[in-house]
Amino acid sequence: MKDLPLSRVYQLLEPGPVVLLTTARKGRANVMTLSWHMMVEFNPPLVACVVSNANHSFAALRATKECVIAIPALELASKVVGIGNCSGRDVDKFAKFGLTRAPAERVAPPLVAECFANLECRVVDTRLVGKFNLFILQVVKAWTDPAQKHPKTLHHQGYGKFAADGQIVKLKSLKP
Amino acid sequence: MKDLPLSRVYQLLEPGPVVLLTTARKGRANVMTLSWHMMVEFNPPLVACVVSNANHSFAALRATKECVIAIPALELASKVVGIGNCSGRDVDKFAKFGLTRAPAERVAPPLVAECFANLECRVVDTRLVGKFNLFILQVVKAWTDPAQKHPKTLHHQGYGKFAADGQIVKLKSLKP
Repeated sequence: MKDLPLSRVYQLLEPGPVVLLTTARKGRANVMTLSWHMMVEFNPPLVACVVSNANHSFAALRATKECVIAIPALELASKVVGIGNCSGRDVDKFAKFGLTRAPAERVAPPLVAECFANLECRVVDTRLVGKFNLFILQVVKAWTDPAQKHPKTLHHQGYGKFAADGQIVKLKSLKP
Repeated sequence: MKDLPLSRVYQLLEPGPVVLLTTARKGRANVMTLSWHMMVEFNPPLVACVVSNANHSFAALRATKECVIAIPALELASKVVGIGNCSGRDVDKFAKFGLTRAPAERVAPPLVAECFANLECRVVDTRLVGKFNLFILQVVKAWTDPAQKHPKTLHHQGYGKFAADGQIVKLKSLKP
């Protein structure tokens, strides 16, 4: 994994890819599938996400205030859906789906080695957790896998239907 | 424009498309480009978005607590970028980009007739506006254009580079 400048994190999340979110609590790591996230600030990068209090990850995220957002490419689609369809209450999802934990540098939850990008995050605002399960995260360290060139991300349209990245459109723009 | 059940709104926004956001204040409508949004609740649909206080739309959204999220397809890409590169302070963007205002049913800001979906929204929580420019919206009415079949949405990767929806992947899932 190669270091990614924090100023470029928004280019990974702004397109709205489905992501994996890892947590760790009491020596046990877990991973969930997440599409409800958005950028909030460029640099330092702030990200909002909604993790339902029905998810096993919710308690770990709220208690430890740490997570990793890992971004999978198209090739991981079936694992992404599988991870979203079972709970860390019942199963070790890393083992079940053959995902490799890699140590993070700044937080306890693991990176997912098969993902082309991993973002180490800390919770920095919890005011909307009670009403909306909405966390504000700061990305404190970012990694990309230089071996994965031009990864196609997945965009969930409901019930396991995804659009993968297709045609690339480049237009002259003054904005980041 | 055809009525869309509110329970299906998440299927439009969860994939992370770039959208247009319209506001209206003192008899004048404006439109901006937005990629920083996410779903917060399925039904009634709640959406979070970040509208920078540097944007002309910010004051209108904060004061009127109403907006429309309009979702453009690939064919509107150059207008989407153009709208993001000028300000309603200086120009009537509907006129400049040849976009057609259509009346909304529940809010004052207009629909954008060229977009394949339009979501009428009211601001329901402003606690994170002061610190993060983050608004929580409730979608109160949703429309789709049945004449636009299989629209490809755009996912911004920075500096005017977009991935359009490509290959569709369908996997068996227990989740919405």
